[in-house]
Amino acid sequence: MSPDAGFSAVIPAGGVGSRLWPLSTPDHPKFLLDLLGSGASLLQDTVARVAPVSDRIMIVTGAAHVSSVRGQLPCLGDDDVIAEPSPHDSMPAIALAAAVLERRHGPHSMGAFSADHVIRKPEAFREAVRIARAAAEAGKVVVIGIEPRGPSTAFGYIKAEAPIEGMEGVRQVEAFTEKPDASTAEAMLAAGSHYWNAGMYVTRTDVLLGHLSRTHPSLEQGVRELAEAWDGPRRAAELDRIWPDLTCIAIDHAIAEPVAAEGGVAVVPGDLDWYDIGDFAVLASMMEPGPDGVRLLQREAGVTTIDAPGAMVVGGERPVVLVGVGDVTVVDAPDAILVLGRDSAQKVKQAMEGTRKR
Amino acid sequence: MSPDAGFSAVIPAGGVGSRLWPLSTPDHPKFLLDLLGSGASLLQDTVARVAPVSDRIMIVTGAAHVSSVRGQLPCLGDDDVIAEPSPHDSMPAIALAAAVLERRHGPHSMGAFSADHVIRKPEAFREAVRIARAAAEAGKVVVIGIEPRGPSTAFGYIKAEAPIEGMEGVRQVEAFTEKPDASTAEAMLAAGSHYWNAGMYVTRTDVLLGHLSRTHPSLEQGVRELAEAWDGPRRAAELDRIWPDLTCIAIDHAIAEPVAAEGGVAVVPGDLDWYDIGDFAVLASMMEPGPDGVRLLQREAGVTTIDAPGAMVVGGERPVVLVGVGDVTVVDAPDAILVLGRDSAQKVKQAMEGTRKR
Repeated sequence: MSPDAGFSAVIPAGGVGSRLWPLSTPDHPKFLLDLLGSGASLLQDTVARVAPVSDRIMIVTGAAHVSSVRGQLPCLGDDDVIAEPSPHDSMPAIALAAAVLERRHGPHSMGAFSADHVIRKPEAFREAVRIARAAAEAGKVVVIGIEPRGPSTAFGYIKAEAPIEGMEGVRQVEAFTEKPDASTAEAMLAAGSHYWNAGMYVTRTDVLLGHLSRTHPSLEQGVRELAEAWDGPRRAAELDRIWPDLTCIAIDHAIAEPVAAEGGVAVVPGDLDWYDIGDFAVLASMMEPGPDGVRLLQREAGVTTIDAPGAMVVGGERPVVLVGVGDVTVVDAPDAILVLGRDSAQKVKQAMEGTRKR
Repeated sequence: MSPDAGFSAVIPAGGVGSRLWPLSTPDHPKFLLDLLGSGASLLQDTVARVAPVSDRIMIVTGAAHVSSVRGQLPCLGDDDVIAEPSPHDSMPAIALAAAVLERRHGPHSMGAFSADHVIRKPEAFREAVRIARAAAEAGKVVVIGIEPRGPSTAFGYIKAEAPIEGMEGVRQVEAFTEKPDASTAEAMLAAGSHYWNAGMYVTRTDVLLGHLSRTHPSLEQGVRELAEAWDGPRRAAELDRIWPDLTCIAIDHAIAEPVAAEGGVAVVPGDLDWYDIGDFAVLASMMEPGPDGVRLLQREAGVTTIDAPGAMVVGGERPVVLVGVGDVTVVDAPDAILVLGRDSAQKVKQAMEGTRKR
């Protein structure tokens, strides 16, 4: 642990957001989009949120998105972006960032925060990070737990035990659970001490890599070798040699679950007003309708509705006219025009795949 | 009556087809569109249908559409198009054509046939015209009556009396009725001797203008003066002077109804498989769905549907993707994107007006 190395924010920026297609596409993935019409992309919002509690920021993204990421974040230095040659889920991305950061700055504390989440209480988020950082520096893997707003079946849950003595706001984690069915979700909400898992982890680089060396030793070995070469002339050659064989696995499965079973994970619960905008139904629920009852996103041109309550229209420059269709979402995007009915938001990915096959 | 003047087909080509917006627009009105994907516009189909029974064809259309009409009908001569400076409903258009034709060829028989109707039994149509022409040459105003396919409330009806002696296939008209309510339509269908009025009239030019001189003398006077000047240098000046004040009225009200009350109208019933594609619901009913159940018009690009039975997609080059919406029509047109639900086709005109106001 290097006491002066400060805190690193690692932001894995991956994932297309397939259920938001054709608004999101492989070329314009969700994290690059201004999904809430705020004027900033989810990635830009994420960076603005973590910057006040971080000494540096490291973005890990696909090679194809590096120039878009740099375009949205002109303040990033050359060293602040890791380009993945291919997607390998979150653990290799976060572990490589940890190894590179540790080689540069010595062991220090870091947090991993998804690039495409929404947090409407950023100060509460930063306070949770400060608390989590203190627990992490004491050796814990710390997860930030989201106070449930309801019995959601869309997220995994964190089950908390007693508060950890001497660490205010920190509780021991008993276990992580997969996405529950409705009755289990109701029971967890009623029982209390269960939090949504938003995949936000705070830990020391050496603690993270130490756990990884036990749970997935070849993965730890691989990212250590990559980090050794990273800031020298062999980076590309080593990436070509090592990256393709690294295990594809999420940090939840690679670290959080096995370490929790050993008692090594703590949770900092927070009321962050956190959202993962997974599909158009979630997006619509977060938007205020205009005076005519229509929700508009990325759109200047008007919408005319007759007998069409609950409409959302996304993108496009031509007038959109809705007659006799209720609760419909229309997306006018370069790749396709999507017309989506009520309660069907989950089927958009399937529709995208069907369209791409043609 | 000039026995050698033959038969003139007058085709009033007006009307936007507002309930087919944004497929039809003021710049691309219904009669110029290939609505059934046959490769020919409704106007071209109309000309092809009447040509075998006509010695000449006269199109009456708005000044803005003359070049499009000539583009679609390159065989038209300079004398075969009348450009209306402004729309005045059907009677001034037909009466001016009759007066111009009579001045050129002497009194002779003519028929007026809308440019945007569909007739799937063209030989039956031509046979009806031949029968109607014979009755017209004997002095009648003759309407071609459509055998009802059901108790439609979308059309006016013609009530027929007994057959006229010595004229096979011709019956006296007792009266014209406005569009009926559902129970009246049922009763008329059950009673028989009621035909849909498709606005197809066959008469002698001198008979038509003679009736008009009694029912609307200033209109008759106006078109006679215009005809006098038509083929000389004063056409434009006379149009400027006379046209704006001509009465706006349909031939049904100006001639057919008052003359029927005097016993001067006959009907030639025909089983023509006639359609007026008034809205997208009618259009959909006339199209065969593809193997995936989707009706496509003016469209090459594919359509992906998930839980979206009964879809129709019109126009556009981008993929259209329909998820969880039943019986929906999507029109991807330069002026707008329309999403139309079941049983709402009649409200499209209102939606167009609302959109244009913006």
